[in-house]
Amino acid sequence: MYIICSDLEGVFVPEIWINVAKKTGIEELKLTTRDISDYDVLMKKRLAILEAHKLKLGDIQAVIKKIDPLEGAVDFLNWIRENYQIIIVSDTFVEFASPLMEKLGRPTLFCNSLIVEPDGSISGYTLRQKDGKRKVVQALKNLSYQVLAFGDSYNDMTMLKEADVSFLFRPPANVVEEFPDIQPTDDYSQLKEWITDATST
Amino acid sequence: MYIICSDLEGVFVPEIWINVAKKTGIEELKLTTRDISDYDVLMKKRLAILEAHKLKLGDIQAVIKKIDPLEGAVDFLNWIRENYQIIIVSDTFVEFASPLMEKLGRPTLFCNSLIVEPDGSISGYTLRQKDGKRKVVQALKNLSYQVLAFGDSYNDMTMLKEADVSFLFRPPANVVEEFPDIQPTDDYSQLKEWITDATST
Repeated sequence: MYIICSDLEGVFVPEIWINVAKKTGIEELKLTTRDISDYDVLMKKRLAILEAHKLKLGDIQAVIKKIDPLEGAVDFLNWIRENYQIIIVSDTFVEFASPLMEKLGRPTLFCNSLIVEPDGSISGYTLRQKDGKRKVVQALKNLSYQVLAFGDSYNDMTMLKEADVSFLFRPPANVVEEFPDIQPTDDYSQLKEWITDATST
Repeated sequence: MYIICSDLEGVFVPEIWINVAKKTGIEELKLTTRDISDYDVLMKKRLAILEAHKLKLGDIQAVIKKIDPLEGAVDFLNWIRENYQIIIVSDTFVEFASPLMEKLGRPTLFCNSLIVEPDGSISGYTLRQKDGKRKVVQALKNLSYQVLAFGDSYNDMTMLKEADVSFLFRPPANVVEEFPDIQPTDDYSQLKEWITDATST
């Protein structure tokens, strides 16, 4: 029996930090795992920028509430949920994700959490575990599932490589070049077709 | 970080087989895991009864489409989904569950599948794995989650015992007597309170 694991940002919703960067006008916050593949380096940089600009959790949540899912994402996700089970596995934080998950109809999300000080400033983050995306796929395999996974970027690679079937969705050019074995598509209909084909054989 | 695991039948929706028994008038189909704790013995008996009455998958699916979630279940489940992640872990079959999951807003379901012959008769079933409920809790613990679980009957016991925090929801009297260490409640509000208390400490 197949189960599906997917990334969140870039797949169902826009990149959260890029949107925060746009709304706040802080250019440096536009960096994502597409640019810096070491997540801890990236996150520490982001938190230092927030501190320097005196931005608190509430400021960022206010921005996130205005983000909508990508066009076609809800229909595509609903199709998946009618036909399969899906776990969305993200490096985002539960404190950021909730308003977006509501707009997606609250599919199951495995992610991380922030360390928030009493004054609302973000002092750090807690990774649920190291290499969490790969470990979710391993856990599901241990539950006798076959895993089909898709994601868009570097931080999805351990998940995609561990899964039985994998696809790239709207990846940047450097990721496509670096991982030629994983089929890329920019189109939900194409991905739907590939999922149907892969799981019916 | 807490994640919630729960049973399906008796917790969010009525017992499927009891409803099939009522609609078809076949009294013997009223047996559940509350009566026969060995699931394989129970399922083989059910399938033999279906065969004897020439009932096919379509007949049973037609009955299941008419079943509604328990009163208050959708609100309770929505509250959980706003505040936590939940995986519903059931011994039911994907072929039976889908119309019920739609009425529940498609939370994630880990369950089993039927073996269906070309003429629509059900010739057997595939357990995803033995002791599947316990293994889901173990898998989630391996993903660094703390697990809070609730269920109503014998087949939930390995899940409830493996979880960090467990409750019984609307259990039969014999289950309450046999497992005095697990707090029982018949009330969604009470369970909500217990979940809040257990996960905020």
